[in-house]
Amino acid sequence: MKRNISVSIIGGSGYAGGELLRLLLFHPNVKVLQVTSRQFAGQLVSRAHPNLRKISNLIFCKQDELLKCDLLFLALPNGISMGYIKEIKNKAEKIIDLGADFRLKDKNTFATWYKKQHEAPDLLPEFTYGIAELHRSELKNAKYVACAGCEAMVSILTLLPLVKHKIIESKNIIIDAKMSSSQGGNTPSMSSHHPERHGVVRSYKPVDHRHSAEIEQELALYSKNIQVSVTATTIEMVRGLLVTIHTQPRPGITEKDIWKAYRSCYGSEPFIRIVKEAEGIYRYPEPKILTGTNYCDIGFVLSTRESRLVAIGAIDNLGKGTAGQAIQAMNIMYGLDEKTGLEFPGLHPI
Amino acid sequence: MKRNISVSIIGGSGYAGGELLRLLLFHPNVKVLQVTSRQFAGQLVSRAHPNLRKISNLIFCKQDELLKCDLLFLALPNGISMGYIKEIKNKAEKIIDLGADFRLKDKNTFATWYKKQHEAPDLLPEFTYGIAELHRSELKNAKYVACAGCEAMVSILTLLPLVKHKIIESKNIIIDAKMSSSQGGNTPSMSSHHPERHGVVRSYKPVDHRHSAEIEQELALYSKNIQVSVTATTIEMVRGLLVTIHTQPRPGITEKDIWKAYRSCYGSEPFIRIVKEAEGIYRYPEPKILTGTNYCDIGFVLSTRESRLVAIGAIDNLGKGTAGQAIQAMNIMYGLDEKTGLEFPGLHPI
Amino acid sequence: MKRNISVSIIGGSGYAGGELLRLLLFHPNVKVLQVTSRQFAGQLVSRAHPNLRKISNLIFCKQDELLKCDLLFLALPNGISMGYIKEIKNKAEKIIDLGADFRLKDKNTFATWYKKQHEAPDLLPEFTYGIAELHRSELKNAKYVACAGCEAMVSILTLLPLVKHKIIESKNIIIDAKMSSSQGGNTPSMSSHHPERHGVVRSYKPVDHRHSAEIEQELALYSKNIQVSVTATTIEMVRGLLVTIHTQPRPGITEKDIWKAYRSCYGSEPFIRIVKEAEGIYRYPEPKILTGTNYCDIGFVLSTRESRLVAIGAIDNLGKGTAGQAIQAMNIMYGLDEKTGLEFPGLHPI
Amino acid sequence: MKRNISVSIIGGSGYAGGELLRLLLFHPNVKVLQVTSRQFAGQLVSRAHPNLRKISNLIFCKQDELLKCDLLFLALPNGISMGYIKEIKNKAEKIIDLGADFRLKDKNTFATWYKKQHEAPDLLPEFTYGIAELHRSELKNAKYVACAGCEAMVSILTLLPLVKHKIIESKNIIIDAKMSSSQGGNTPSMSSHHPERHGVVRSYKPVDHRHSAEIEQELALYSKNIQVSVTATTIEMVRGLLVTIHTQPRPGITEKDIWKAYRSCYGSEPFIRIVKEAEGIYRYPEPKILTGTNYCDIGFVLSTRESRLVAIGAIDNLGKGTAGQAIQAMNIMYGLDEKTGLEFPGLHPI
Repeated sequence: MKRNISVSIIGGSGYAGGELLRLLLFHPNVKVLQVTSRQFAGQLVSRAHPNLRKISNLIFCKQDELLKCDLLFLALPNGISMGYIKEIKNKAEKIIDLGADFRLKDKNTFATWYKKQHEAPDLLPEFTYGIAELHRSELKNAKYVACAGCEAMVSILTLLPLVKHKIIESKNIIIDAKMSSSQGGNTPSMSSHHPERHGVVRSYKPVDHRHSAEIEQELALYSKNIQVSVTATTIEMVRGLLVTIHTQPRPGITEKDIWKAYRSCYGSEPFIRIVKEAEGIYRYPEPKILTGTNYCDIGFVLSTRESRLVAIGAIDNLGKGTAGQAIQAMNIMYGLDEKTGLEFPGLHPI
Repeated sequence: MKRNISVSIIGGSGYAGGELLRLLLFHPNVKVLQVTSRQFAGQLVSRAHPNLRKISNLIFCKQDELLKCDLLFLALPNGISMGYIKEIKNKAEKIIDLGADFRLKDKNTFATWYKKQHEAPDLLPEFTYGIAELHRSELKNAKYVACAGCEAMVSILTLLPLVKHKIIESKNIIIDAKMSSSQGGNTPSMSSHHPERHGVVRSYKPVDHRHSAEIEQELALYSKNIQVSVTATTIEMVRGLLVTIHTQPRPGITEKDIWKAYRSCYGSEPFIRIVKEAEGIYRYPEPKILTGTNYCDIGFVLSTRESRLVAIGAIDNLGKGTAGQAIQAMNIMYGLDEKTGLEFPGLHPI
Repeated sequence: MKRNISVSIIGGSGYAGGELLRLLLFHPNVKVLQVTSRQFAGQLVSRAHPNLRKISNLIFCKQDELLKCDLLFLALPNGISMGYIKEIKNKAEKIIDLGADFRLKDKNTFATWYKKQHEAPDLLPEFTYGIAELHRSELKNAKYVACAGCEAMVSILTLLPLVKHKIIESKNIIIDAKMSSSQGGNTPSMSSHHPERHGVVRSYKPVDHRHSAEIEQELALYSKNIQVSVTATTIEMVRGLLVTIHTQPRPGITEKDIWKAYRSCYGSEPFIRIVKEAEGIYRYPEPKILTGTNYCDIGFVLSTRESRLVAIGAIDNLGKGTAGQAIQAMNIMYGLDEKTGLEFPGLHPI
Repeated sequence: MKRNISVSIIGGSGYAGGELLRLLLFHPNVKVLQVTSRQFAGQLVSRAHPNLRKISNLIFCKQDELLKCDLLFLALPNGISMGYIKEIKNKAEKIIDLGADFRLKDKNTFATWYKKQHEAPDLLPEFTYGIAELHRSELKNAKYVACAGCEAMVSILTLLPLVKHKIIESKNIIIDAKMSSSQGGNTPSMSSHHPERHGVVRSYKPVDHRHSAEIEQELALYSKNIQVSVTATTIEMVRGLLVTIHTQPRPGITEKDIWKAYRSCYGSEPFIRIVKEAEGIYRYPEPKILTGTNYCDIGFVLSTRESRLVAIGAIDNLGKGTAGQAIQAMNIMYGLDEKTGLEFPGLHPI
C-alpha cells in the first residue's frame, strides 16, 4: 500500500493535534508532511507528545514554512481558523478544520453564540459538517470539512434516531454531559491545577452551552423546533465524554420501537455500538473503555412510570469527538475504507 | 461539659457506622457505650475503621450483648431494621435509623419500591423523617427518627425552596445525580473492583430510583403532584454526591425571586450555604470540599433562552447524607446546639 | 498476508488473557482458534472484555473442548500450569506460559519462594525465559516459553546493562516498585474494593518479593553474587509499573559510561527507549504514556554527592510485562518481524 | 476558655497558609487577627480557601497593614522570609516560619543546597527546628521556630529511633518518597496541568534532594556520619506523603529490638502511631487516612534474607508536615496541651 496522501497539521502541539498526528503516523495511506507549532518550532514532535518518542522524527515547523500538500488539518483554538483560512487555502486541495469556526451554517447564529462577527462568512456554505453518519455522501466530494464539537458529536449521534423516527418530543431535551479535563486543552490555569482539578464535580457550564447551536442545527434536518439544553459538568477524567440525555417519549412508544430506530439508523455503521445489557458491570456506554478509539457507544432506558426515555452516549472526546472523526471524514473524502487507521479497539482494564 | 447521653450503634462496621462513630467519639455530650458487628465482634473498632487507631479502644460486641442506653443508632443494610426493631426497641428510649426501612410513611409505597411487604407497618407513623431543615420542631420530641437517603437529602434541600415558593413547575423535575463509590457500602464485588471501578462514568440507575419516593413524599408537603425523575451515575469519587437538577421555572421568574426563595428558607440554617459566584473555580457547589462535613451547598443558574432553571446541590453522602444528619437530629432531640460535634469545615486542597 | 498461525488461550477471561486476546485479534499472522474460561464458557469474549464488543464474535469454551492448534498461550493463576501442562502439551507444538510456574530454572528455588514443590520439575529445563532482549536466539527455536513476571521484566531490563558493563556494585541493589491495581488480577476483595483501594500508597510487599528470584537468576548470567531487594508499593493506578532502582556505582563511573552501557545493549532494540531529558515534564520514564504498549522506557541519574546511581524503568504491566512480551516472543519463535502487532504507540494525554 | 493568643499569618493564600488558618480558626486559645495576601488583599479568605465559606469572615489584608500580635506565622515561598524577617520581627514576640529559610543551622550548608547566600545568617542560631518530638524542651522557650520540611519531618521521625538506638548502619540510607501534588504549591504550570499530572509516577527529584540536608543535620544529634539519599517520586495524590526507607540493620538486630527502639522513643508521643499489623488492608502506614490530621504513622519490616530493614512513614504533608506541626509547636510555646486544636482523627473511607 502506498502512503500517497500528503497531509500537514496546522497547530499540532495541542491535544487534538497530537492525537491526529498519532493516528496519521499509523495510517497506511497517509504521509505526514509537516506539523506546525509556534511554541515548539524546531523541536521534535515527541517534545509535545511524549508517546511519539522513537515513533516519529518529525520536527515542528513554523506556519510560514508551510508547503503545499493534499490535505490540511487545522487544529487551532476557536476563532483563529476563520481569520487564517484565506491565507492558507491555496496550500491544499482539501481542508479539515477541527475547530469551531465553520460548524454553524448561519453567521448570525455564530455571532450569537461566539459573541463576535464571523470573519469569513462567505466560506460557511462550502463546509460540510464532519459527522460521517449524517453527511457521508456529501463528505465524498467535500473540499472543506468542519468537524463537530465533541459534545455535539455524541449528542447528535445519540439523539438522531430518536428524532428521526419520532420517538421523542422535540422539546425539553436535557443533555447532561460529564466531561474530562483534556476538553479544556493544554493551557495550564488555576482551574486545571491538579490539587484543584482532581476529584471535582464541577458545574462548568450549567446552561447556554455553545454546542447547543450545532446540535439544534443538525437535528433540525430531521425535525422542526428541536430545542436542546446542555449542562456540562467536568469530572475526574482525563479523556472521555458521556452524555445522559433526558427526553420525553411520545405516547405509546415501546422499547422495541427504540431498538428499531437505532438499528435502522446504525445497523451498518462501523463505529456505533448499541450497548444495553441486562447484566454485568458495563451494561451501558462507558467512556473509559473507549479511550483512544473512534467508537460511539449508545444505550437507553425507558421508564413507563416516569414517561421518560434516558439515552446515554459515550465517546473519547479526542477520538470520535475530534481526531478520529477527522480521520474518518478523510477516509471518506479519499474513497478509502472508512475504518482505515481507526481499528484500535480500546483497552480493558484501564 | 458532661458526656451524659449514652448511645450505642447497631451495625457499626460499615461506612455509615464508622463515620457515625468518629463523630460521636468527639461529641462533647455523648458517651459511646457499645458498637456491634457480627463480622468484627471481639476486635477493636479500629480494625474496621483505621482512622480510629489510638483514638478509641472500643471493641465491637455482638448484638445479643446489647445493654440499655439512651439512644440507639441503627446502621444496618436496608430491610433489616424493620424485622429487628421490635426486638430491640426496649433497649433505648430513642432510636435513629440510618437505613431505608422507615422513611416512607405509606406501606404500599414501600412495597412498590422495595418489592417486599413492610414487616413493621404499625411503627411507620411513629418515625420522624430526619431532615432537620424540614422537621426541626417534630424532631424535638421525636422518639424514632428515620434518616433520609443521601440522594433524597440533597435533592429535597435543593428543591424545597423552589417548590415551596412556586418558582418551578411541579412536573419534569430531572435529578441527575453524580455518585461516589462509598454509597455502595463496604462489600466488595466485581462492580467495586478497583481496575473496573476506577475512572468510570457508570449509568448505575438511569430511571426509577428508589429515592424518588422519599423526595416526592417530602416535597408533597409543599406542592401537590410533584413528580421527580432521578438518574444516578456513579463516577470516580469515594465520598461525595452532587445533584444537577433540571427544572422549568414558572413564567416570569427572575434570578432575584430564586435568591429570595433560598434566603427565606435557609437564611438562618447553620449547615446550608448558597454557592453562586461570578468568578473563581468554586463558583458552584463542589462535593470534594465537603468531605467529612455536615454542609449542604446549593447553587443555581437560570437560563432565559432555555426557560430552564438548573439547581445544583452537593453534600458528603456519609456526612449530611447519613451520619452528620443523624447527629444533627440527635442534637435537636436532646436540646443541644445543633452544630455540636459537626463543626468540621472540610479540607482544601483535597 | 495470511493468518496462518493458529493459537488458543487457556484462561482467557483474566486481565492478561484479555490483553493477549486483544493483541492477537489484530495480529496479521495469527488466527485465534479458541479461548477458554470456566466462568464464562458459552458467553461472548466481550462479556469479560467489554472493549472487544463488535470486534470479536468468539465465544469462551471449556478446557475440555480444546482443539489442536499451533501455539497455546497459558494465562492461568500461579500454580495451575505446572499441574496441567502434561495434559495439554500434546495439543500444540509450542506453548507460551504467562504465569510463574516455569520461570525459575531450579526446583529448589521454586520451592523456597512459592512454598510448594514443583509438580513438573522435569519440564523446567525445556522452558526459555521470555525476555526477548536477553534470550532472542534461544527463543527462535524454543518450544516452551515462560514469560517473565512484570516486576522482573522491568527490573532486569533496567539493570542488565549496569550489571553487564560493571557499572554498579552487585550488592545493595534496591528495587522500589510502584505498582498498579491490575497486577492483582480480576478477583474482587476488600483490598481491591474501590473506597479502600482508591488513592492508596500501600506497602504491599516491603521485603522478600518473589520476583527477586527471577531477577537474580537472570542477572547471574552477567555477574556473580547479584543480590536484589524488591519493595512493592501499590498506588493509584490501574495499569503501569515503575521501578526506582537504587544502586551504588563502582568507583570512577561517569554518566558517559552509563549512556554507553545502555546504548551498547539496547541501541537496536525496537521496544526499549532511554528517556533522560533535561527539560519538560516527561524527563524520565512515565508508565501512564506506556499504557497499551510494548515499550520499556529506561532512565537514570547519577549523584556524585551521594555515590548513588538511580535507574528508573517503566512498562505497562499487561503489555511488555505480560501480553506484549508473549507476542514479541511468539513473533521471534515464528520468524516474524518482532514488532508485528505491537506497534501501538500509547496515548497522550491519558 | 479565652481566645487570648493573637496571631497573624503572612502569606495566607497558599495551601500551607490555608490549612494553618483552618486549624487556627477552630483553636480554642487563639484569635486570628490578620491574614495577608498580595493577590487576594481585600477579598474574603474563603475566596482562596473555599472550605472556609460561612466559617470565617476574615478579609485578606496587605503586608503593610500588619498590626502587632503575639505570634506571627510566615507561610511564604522559600527565600522570602530571610529577606523580610528583620522588617517584621518587631511585630510579634514570637515567629513560626513554615518555609525553608531558617531550618539549616549552617549558612554554608544553606548556600550549598539553596544556591544562594543566606540573607540573615545572624538569626540562624535563634531558630529552633520545629519537630516537637525532638525539640520539645527548647520549643517551650523558643522565640523563633523553623518548621521542618515535610519529607524531612516524616523521614526524621521514622529514622530517629533506628539511629538513636543503633539499629541501623549510618550509611546507605535510601529514602524513597512518594509525594502528592499539593507539595508543589498552588501555582499552575504545565507540570501541574491536570491532563499531564493525573496518574503520573513522575521521578521528580531522583537524587540530591534539599531535604537531605535537614535530615542529616537532625540525625547527626544521635549519630555521626549519617548519610541519607532521598528520591522523590510524585504520584496520583493531592495530599499525603509516604517514605519507604531502605536501611541496613546492624548485625544481630531482631524485630524485638526495633519495636523496643520505637516504643522507647514514641511510647508517650500523642501524634505518633506504630502501624504494623499481621492482617487487614491497612497493615502499614497509609497517608490517605491521615488527610487533615497531625499524625505520623510509622511501620517497619525486617528481612533476614536480605539483611534489610524497610521502615515506612506517612503523614499529611500539610498537616504534621506543615500546618499541624506549626500548631503543635505553638501549643508547646504557650504551655497548652499539645493536642489542642489537632484532634481531628482523619476520615475513612476517603
